[in-house]
Amino acid sequence: MLAARGFGGLTLRAVAAELGASTGLLTHYFPHKRALVAHALDVLDRQAADRHRPATEAATAEAATARGLPVLRAALLDILPLDGEGAAGNRIWVGSWDAALTDPGLTEEHAERYRRARRRMAELCADAQELGELPADRPAADLAALAQSFTLGLVVQALFAPAEFPPERQRALLDDFLAGLAAGER
Amino acid sequence: MLAARGFGGLTLRAVAAELGASTGLLTHYFPHKRALVAHALDVLDRQAADRHRPATEAATAEAATARGLPVLRAALLDILPLDGEGAAGNRIWVGSWDAALTDPGLTEEHAERYRRARRRMAELCADAQELGELPADRPAADLAALAQSFTLGLVVQALFAPAEFPPERQRALLDDFLAGLAAGER
Repeated sequence: MLAARGFGGLTLRAVAAELGASTGLLTHYFPHKRALVAHALDVLDRQAADRHRPATEAATAEAATARGLPVLRAALLDILPLDGEGAAGNRIWVGSWDAALTDPGLTEEHAERYRRARRRMAELCADAQELGELPADRPAADLAALAQSFTLGLVVQALFAPAEFPPERQRALLDDFLAGLAAGER
Repeated sequence: MLAARGFGGLTLRAVAAELGASTGLLTHYFPHKRALVAHALDVLDRQAADRHRPATEAATAEAATARGLPVLRAALLDILPLDGEGAAGNRIWVGSWDAALTDPGLTEEHAERYRRARRRMAELCADAQELGELPADRPAADLAALAQSFTLGLVVQALFAPAEFPPERQRALLDDFLAGLAAGER
């Protein structure tokens, strides 16, 4: 429902109707819209984590030995709206920003989510620096902030203009960006 | 009100109260919330255009002769939330994305806004390519899409974590990004 109607269109009554439950039953578990929204974002977080977990033992072994720029590239590709599921998930995240910037609790939860994501990316960037794939003269945290900025902004543009940002162009732009990250020295 | 309460918190009644007017008078001009929101975004567009207009004849002459990468850099700096006004304006834009991704009319208006912005940036990129400041082997439209992606994503991160993205870090990250754009070849 969030993907289709946005946060502005979400009501406890509509969710209860969709579930075939009474509003009273729903509010027993989620006393207000904010609680429901926080739960929806947690579910989305867990789904994303599950999607990124290797499906087989062989894939686990491969993931354990993979290093550097290709791993960073895969992590950024995972974020982009390259298919319908990716577009729906991203549409919910982008839609959550209005409420998240208004509600101090949600603001901090979101800020912490993005902080964690930047820390994970900074580890991948540091690894790529060790391998000589990214310039060593800039803090890995800055490289991570550059990567997260680029990726989030591409998500927004692709959601508004999917015809101009088909999957292959998103991938090509990501590769352009990473080439710049690898080459760029101030 | 949009900057403080977000789109989710905006009601015609609250706006009327803020104006000291009746809801009836307000709905005479804006029959529904969507019309009010569209008007607010147009006002924001015009304010941004006014801010970028050179204030003096000397500034006009200077702007007319300025070219290439410094002009692109200035255009991107103009977008970033480097002060309170920039943060409030950006907070409204980011907040508008939830409604804009739900309402087909608003989606198209937003898509067209970003398309226009990319076209303007592509002209600046093409100029920088002519001057040899940006690599000539990539379409200016791609360089513009990279620049807009990076800038929009940095806006979002800076809104959620202003302490981690003070103005001087935003500027430094933009310069890192532009250095990569200038250096990057696939």
